[in-house]
Amino acid sequence: MPEAPRLDNSTQPTDEELRTLDAHWRAANYLAAGQIYLLANPLLTEPLRPEHIKPRLLGHWGTSPGLNLVHTHLNRVIKNRALDALCIWGPGHGGPSVLANSWLEGSYSETYRDVTRDAQGMELLMRQFSFPGGVPSHVAPEVPGSIHEGGELGYSLAHAYGAALDHPGLLVACVIGDGEAETGPLAGSWHANKFLDPVHDGAVLPILHLNGYKIANPTVLSRLPQSELDALLRGYGHEPIHVSGDDPATVHRAMAQAMDTALDRIAEAQRAAREEGVTERPHWPVIVLRTPKGWTGPAEVDGEPVEGTWRSHQVPLAGVHDNPEHLRQLEAWLRSYRPEELFDAEGRPVADVLACVPEGSRRLGATPYANGGLLVRDLPIPSLDDFAVPVDKPGTTLHEPTRVLGDLLAQVMRDTADRRDFRLVGPDETASNRLQAVFDASGKAWQAETLDVDEHLDRHGRVMEVLSEHLCQGWLEGYLLTGRHGLFSCYEAFVHIVDSMVNQHIKWLRTSRRLPWRAPIASLNYLLTSHVWRQDHNGFSHQDPGFVDHVLNKSPEVVRVYLPPDANTLLSVADHALRSRDYVNVVVAGKQPCFDWLSMDEARVHCARGAGIWAWAGTEDGSREPDVVLACAGDVPTQETLAAAHLLRRHLPDLSVRVVNVVDLARLLPREEHPHGMNDFEYDGLFTTDKPVIFAYHGYPWLIHRLAYRRTGHQHLHVRGYKEAGTTTTPFDMVVRNDLDRYRLVMDVIDRVPGLAVRATAVRQRMADARTRHHAWIREHGTDLPEVAEWNWNA
Amino acid sequence: MPEAPRLDNSTQPTDEELRTLDAHWRAANYLAAGQIYLLANPLLTEPLRPEHIKPRLLGHWGTSPGLNLVHTHLNRVIKNRALDALCIWGPGHGGPSVLANSWLEGSYSETYRDVTRDAQGMELLMRQFSFPGGVPSHVAPEVPGSIHEGGELGYSLAHAYGAALDHPGLLVACVIGDGEAETGPLAGSWHANKFLDPVHDGAVLPILHLNGYKIANPTVLSRLPQSELDALLRGYGHEPIHVSGDDPATVHRAMAQAMDTALDRIAEAQRAAREEGVTERPHWPVIVLRTPKGWTGPAEVDGEPVEGTWRSHQVPLAGVHDNPEHLRQLEAWLRSYRPEELFDAEGRPVADVLACVPEGSRRLGATPYANGGLLVRDLPIPSLDDFAVPVDKPGTTLHEPTRVLGDLLAQVMRDTADRRDFRLVGPDETASNRLQAVFDASGKAWQAETLDVDEHLDRHGRVMEVLSEHLCQGWLEGYLLTGRHGLFSCYEAFVHIVDSMVNQHIKWLRTSRRLPWRAPIASLNYLLTSHVWRQDHNGFSHQDPGFVDHVLNKSPEVVRVYLPPDANTLLSVADHALRSRDYVNVVVAGKQPCFDWLSMDEARVHCARGAGIWAWAGTEDGSREPDVVLACAGDVPTQETLAAAHLLRRHLPDLSVRVVNVVDLARLLPREEHPHGMNDFEYDGLFTTDKPVIFAYHGYPWLIHRLAYRRTGHQHLHVRGYKEAGTTTTPFDMVVRNDLDRYRLVMDVIDRVPGLAVRATAVRQRMADARTRHHAWIREHGTDLPEVAEWNWNA
Repeated sequence: MPEAPRLDNSTQPTDEELRTLDAHWRAANYLAAGQIYLLANPLLTEPLRPEHIKPRLLGHWGTSPGLNLVHTHLNRVIKNRALDALCIWGPGHGGPSVLANSWLEGSYSETYRDVTRDAQGMELLMRQFSFPGGVPSHVAPEVPGSIHEGGELGYSLAHAYGAALDHPGLLVACVIGDGEAETGPLAGSWHANKFLDPVHDGAVLPILHLNGYKIANPTVLSRLPQSELDALLRGYGHEPIHVSGDDPATVHRAMAQAMDTALDRIAEAQRAAREEGVTERPHWPVIVLRTPKGWTGPAEVDGEPVEGTWRSHQVPLAGVHDNPEHLRQLEAWLRSYRPEELFDAEGRPVADVLACVPEGSRRLGATPYANGGLLVRDLPIPSLDDFAVPVDKPGTTLHEPTRVLGDLLAQVMRDTADRRDFRLVGPDETASNRLQAVFDASGKAWQAETLDVDEHLDRHGRVMEVLSEHLCQGWLEGYLLTGRHGLFSCYEAFVHIVDSMVNQHIKWLRTSRRLPWRAPIASLNYLLTSHVWRQDHNGFSHQDPGFVDHVLNKSPEVVRVYLPPDANTLLSVADHALRSRDYVNVVVAGKQPCFDWLSMDEARVHCARGAGIWAWAGTEDGSREPDVVLACAGDVPTQETLAAAHLLRRHLPDLSVRVVNVVDLARLLPREEHPHGMNDFEYDGLFTTDKPVIFAYHGYPWLIHRLAYRRTGHQHLHVRGYKEAGTTTTPFDMVVRNDLDRYRLVMDVIDRVPGLAVRATAVRQRMADARTRHHAWIREHGTDLPEVAEWNWNA
Repeated sequence: MPEAPRLDNSTQPTDEELRTLDAHWRAANYLAAGQIYLLANPLLTEPLRPEHIKPRLLGHWGTSPGLNLVHTHLNRVIKNRALDALCIWGPGHGGPSVLANSWLEGSYSETYRDVTRDAQGMELLMRQFSFPGGVPSHVAPEVPGSIHEGGELGYSLAHAYGAALDHPGLLVACVIGDGEAETGPLAGSWHANKFLDPVHDGAVLPILHLNGYKIANPTVLSRLPQSELDALLRGYGHEPIHVSGDDPATVHRAMAQAMDTALDRIAEAQRAAREEGVTERPHWPVIVLRTPKGWTGPAEVDGEPVEGTWRSHQVPLAGVHDNPEHLRQLEAWLRSYRPEELFDAEGRPVADVLACVPEGSRRLGATPYANGGLLVRDLPIPSLDDFAVPVDKPGTTLHEPTRVLGDLLAQVMRDTADRRDFRLVGPDETASNRLQAVFDASGKAWQAETLDVDEHLDRHGRVMEVLSEHLCQGWLEGYLLTGRHGLFSCYEAFVHIVDSMVNQHIKWLRTSRRLPWRAPIASLNYLLTSHVWRQDHNGFSHQDPGFVDHVLNKSPEVVRVYLPPDANTLLSVADHALRSRDYVNVVVAGKQPCFDWLSMDEARVHCARGAGIWAWAGTEDGSREPDVVLACAGDVPTQETLAAAHLLRRHLPDLSVRVVNVVDLARLLPREEHPHGMNDFEYDGLFTTDKPVIFAYHGYPWLIHRLAYRRTGHQHLHVRGYKEAGTTTTPFDMVVRNDLDRYRLVMDVIDRVPGLAVRATAVRQRMADARTRHHAWIREHGTDLPEVAEWNWNA
């Protein structure tokens, strides 16, 4: 491994500098503790009395002093080196700390005018914290300077890398708690440095904060011998720099030196790559900061050690309302920071406290990188007509929809070659998902060793492939939140791996949309392909269409779900998704050859409506309502529905059939429940109020009922979909096993249109016979019936 | 780090032994390739013709030769050392390999009598693979000897540790693919060795298989310098042993030596801990096996390198149907294994091939550890009466339900102290979830450093806490699948982290239930607590009740969801869950003080019914149907419903009100949809067919509609629940924000009972006023209205 650069002695902090750094740190600690406890008397201008204490004591003290230390020292280097920096606070439970620092530097008061940087504002800052109707206890969208909610742990480092990509001038510091470090996603994120381009990307500086304890247990990493921890970090590709201690003066000096060393090394690695063309992967620094949990808080409470133990995780002194000794301890603790030295008579921070604070948008709470909507530019999206497939007759030609989309994405990739604000992420499946045209425009990011046989690897590539859905999701979130665009292509079944992450991102967007100072960011776009109906290779483990259900439980102002039935509708939907802001768009589309149903112009109109009648596919004459509605959503269900319509046209030509295709699933919801919801007039116009609706749906059938249960005609709605009848088999066998096949749909029509059962006995038997024939054929040949394999709409 | 033990020269394999090992390996490779390609002519007794080839070529060749090598060498050491062993095949896509080995050792034919160990059986083995109606392409429940579906990657090592816990005589080998190693869950699982007790637990031998490529990319770990990879593995607490090469003879020798070295070290570590009381954490061996992807397959196809590259991931020769050169290459490839030397004229493996194969249940495909139902014993569950809380009057006393359950779990823990077949897992939240009574019976498993201030850490503990839901889930799955019992307690919101894992476990159970040779295993039991309504500290990021929705999409024969409304019902539900087999039981229950509604006897009857009328809570007189049904599911909704019933009793005494509580959510489904579903007669008897039903539900309200949409009275069903109106606030404010509060429920009744709106205008206004009063009070005081905080049913 490379020799570390020598430490430049000029970076040794002076005693005076250390004194002001400590003042800043004490001020932040004071404000953090004050937020947990105080309702009034913020400056302790009078003795502390029970009525100054909040009725409910909520918040996490344990991590706060460590976060404050990091913030203080980041301030120093940002100011000294004129850095553009962003910090991801992994232990986001430490909301009091980040709020305190933002208030100290003034960015809080600039964002929230009523919380002024004086005694009155300090009282409000403290009172509102974790107070009903106030601010949440974690680092949340409401906190200036944050892009990361640290409530659910595990994603900080992935977010940090996502933020650093294509921001060559940015330093992204990332505090990782030793609790968080035990999570799988965090453990997997360390290897993200194999994908970070020292030329076009910024730097990530991980700061592993070992404060020793989780809620109730020691942490694994804090209890490793140092040799083992060092081996681990070196194995992750990092060069560790250690800072340990519980004496503030010593730790301040060590931390200042560590920060300087780390930033010198980063600067040198970037210089070598950018100026000398060095391509060897740098061994980036990591700072290991070992300080006591709840540092500077009460050492003991009721005879039990608290500082330096798990007991300081949340509220170290819980009995302050009723226990005078606790109240006394709290007052002594707060006064130990000597607030009278830190704030003037009006409650404003004194000059010493602010000495380390950088100016303007370099302040961590004011950086535009944490309010990515300020930076985002519209994506150059070419005309869809250049990529559309020609459709003279519907249902005659076949295209692989995702391959067609791949051409469009390649053009976007080309057109952003200089801007570098568009990335495609996916778990090793870009080509498997047939998007490989993008490789003509950009290779795959890769900084590890390469061999001659490798293809499309590129030190400067903007396609990101790693076998971790967590890392893909985290990268993309970090990338979008800092003002760029992207798309996550994923096997449909395995996107459930990030269920929990998308929850948190939706919550983030839902909250940030309501904050006037947060500018809209590009939507998080999923392309779910290799879907449930086409897992011919992989079978049951790869069959799960439930992500749509998961997402549709979340805030309707954020979530959108699209099921384009063919190549041109996929283009139209993708175009819309890539232009949109502040949404999570879920697009489900197949990669296998699929009939082209709509021309580009028709696709545009249909997708804009989100749901509509395909008049050419039905047999209604317009003079009256149809006898039955065949509805469909999804590519495979659309094909089976069209085939069923075809069979009905041939075998029951008198039957008046309407075909409705749904692209935008939320259209089925009432308007009051989702902004895309149809009103009843529209819904009834499409689906009727009293005719049978046979709905062939891509996923779990009850989802359609859950969306449409309030509609007048709901009792006539009959849905077919995936019902966990999965295995390794042919495409048609899959739909037969799940009763979604054309023959079953025709039987459903016959069973549900009043009077038809008697009239169409022979046709029904014919359909049942076809299913029997299928079973026999596949057992014998292992393939689908020729009449199915060769079917097309115009046959 | 400790010096590695010297290699004992007696373990050097003889040339004769190496020759037979190679024969076994070649036979397995031949059978693996044959399964991907051959429909007939399994022994190549005639020249290969297109009609011998399967119509659809499906399967993963790339990983198979490496898995075969591991299997061959595991056979050797199991036989030589008379080991009880189990292997987890992380690259489970390599189904052909594990099937081949099971067939060779005879366990396949013993499990599936028609697939005989001769030419006829070989043809069937090959034909059925990935054939519709045949066997899946991955290692699946159908595969003898497996407890791990390798379709969704990431969980092999966690499963391996789960299997090894409390099986002191067991060796669990675990093949980890270098693709899988990139996932977060796998990366986090390496630290599981800090929880493995060398005294009471078996050993885990990870075999990291670096074959260099994923689907389309190199893998990160295969492209690290060896020094960095070694540092990483040492940092994980392992001592690496390397085996590399592409010359079979060399690799066989090295692999045999590596296996012996690893097993010697494991034996020594266990001996030292068990006989000498050594407590230093062992640095367990890991084997790093570096062999080419698709090893021994076609070196080049159509001029492109294939062996040793990603091109051999699935089917290296795809054109065999139409391209004579491909067909010729396939035949040459298959014949390169010299099948005529490996199988006799009847297709039976010759003695050399079987020389390494162990006997009877030591064979990896026949071990009872992979069919845990053969080993599982009923759990000793004490009488619930010893733990029940006394309930003289409903709704008067308060208990924390999970704390009451904790006492029961502690007793189970005590009563299994010798058997060691019960574990509690959770992400650092056992005490936070108020189950800490278990610590009186067992400490928390911990093998890393301890300090004086630590509490409840225990080298031999059976409570498992790590800040990784993935690891908790993986451990418990491995533990249950190998014949033991357990419970996973988790914050409700964060159980979504394992959505994808529980999917796969449900799929596993659904399939294994249909296999007569798989004996039922203990259910996977979730206790979801710290739930959506009581996140006073943490707010929005911790509020998500959607896991229930996720689980209820899956196979109804496997999934069960319970929402016990108080302490005694929680005891009854837990008792049922812990006794059950082959289910996934989701139990949602609060940890905060909650009114006791039912005595233990009443709780037993109510939980057995799953849903029932609480006559004492309503005002109907039995002579006619009530005017309105107040239904509820979940502890907080039950409290609000009872409070609403109380208000109605006082303010509208003439109204006939029925209160229905639902514990077992699947009862709401039609009987045809779930085994617990009510028939319409039962449902209508509880809910009426035409009276308004105001249903207060714990989670997303539309779930209740999705369950009940087929019921006659569905149009009269009005559901209140969580609708993403979350933040850091008080308990009552949460229900008000989501319109689930008692006052809103009374208003709903007034709005929906015909004629009541006019008659009860004043009462409705009173309710609206109470909500207004709430808003003012909380803004001022930050606490709940005294009338709410002090309410009880008997006030």
